Amino acid sequence: MPSPRVRVRRLPKRAAYDRATINAILDEALVCHLGFVHNGQPFVIPTLHARIGDRLYVHGSSASRMLGTLAGGAAACVTVTLIDGLVLARSAFHHSVNYRSVVLLGTATPVTDPDEKVAALQGFTNHMVHGRWDDIRPPTPQELKATNVLYLPLDEASAKVRTGPPVDDDEDYELDVWAGVVPLALEAGAPIVDDRLKDGVCMPEYASAYRR
Amino acid sequence: MPSPRVRVRRLPKRAAYDRATINAILDEALVCHLGFVHNGQPFVIPTLHARIGDRLYVHGSSASRMLGTLAGGAAACVTVTLIDGLVLARSAFHHSVNYRSVVLLGTATPVTDPDEKVAALQGFTNHMVHGRWDDIRPPTPQELKATNVLYLPLDEASAKVRTGPPVDDDEDYELDVWAGVVPLALEAGAPIVDDRLKDGVCMPEYASAYRR
Repeated sequence: MPSPRVRVRRLPKRAAYDRATINAILDEALVCHLGFVHNGQPFVIPTLHARIGDRLYVHGSSASRMLGTLAGGAAACVTVTLIDGLVLARSAFHHSVNYRSVVLLGTATPVTDPDEKVAALQGFTNHMVHGRWDDIRPPTPQELKATNVLYLPLDEASAKVRTGPPVDDDEDYELDVWAGVVPLALEAGAPIVDDRLKDGVCMPEYASAYRR
Repeated sequence: MPSPRVRVRRLPKRAAYDRATINAILDEALVCHLGFVHNGQPFVIPTLHARIGDRLYVHGSSASRMLGTLAGGAAACVTVTLIDGLVLARSAFHHSVNYRSVVLLGTATPVTDPDEKVAALQGFTNHMVHGRWDDIRPPTPQELKATNVLYLPLDEASAKVRTGPPVDDDEDYELDVWAGVVPLALEAGAPIVDDRLKDGVCMPEYASAYRR
């Protein structure tokens, strides 16, 4: 059962509370929007996330105000949104967007176990590009020290999903107005090779054929 | 001068405070993430926005908890984020994302002037698809009544932008690791025509050749 705080009230038929749906959205979305309160003011900051099992990890500089506030036990909200299409209805009122979103509430806990911290950093890298971690230089002790990692448990979350065509008022279907869905997706272009790439290093398929 | 609340502290060389940069990011991003506090808990909700001049409009059902909270004078944060690419460095530590984001702080004001309300609804529709408003059935008085429109003034905002290649540590440029940028963008696919489209209605170019 969802908590009252994450139960979807507006258009509840769009709600989903099962972990498979929630996990799939969290894993596909490249970045999340992290909300916290500082001196009474809400802030919403885009940041990379990674889910491992029942934990949603975020990270940043040890000097970050955001991470400092969160590590102090402040309430947080992590929201991810995937845009799937524009829903062009016959009336202005029924225009919409096809999307999949997750809202996760909770309190962040700093990761202190060194193995969990490295696993989370591996998670961030592979969340960006599956398999990338195996090819790169891992963090040094100094880099680990300069990075704070926090997690939120996936205990209080809900998803909201809109799919399908526009839903117009009955009488509007007679109008001479084009209607349908324009699909949208985050698509990769041709990679831009670094000018300083060492001679003889080939482009991996995860870059040349990147897909989320 | 930016207020201390929106001044970018982490990586300040990525900051921009000019309205041209801020407007361009707000106008290109399809949706924003709206943060507010309810019973001490921050919430972050994706929603459509539209900028007209110096005002950033959001809207929703008159029954929405989010809009009710905001209309009551609660502090808000509107964040938009455009993802431009994956920055694949030679080390895990220097992996990054190319992005353009805006953070806007303020207090929302309900739009009560009927003309401004219709202009804002026109703004939402044309923010989705430029020129769409001229083709569709405009809102009825009942639909206008069922819709709340609020605005935040664009007084306290900052942008943050990362562009360009990875920046690696000097000694890492000798590694046999592929490095570069995988460009990402929200791209449109072939429109899905509504099954109930009236015979003889042609697909407009803003749908067949949609670009943000």
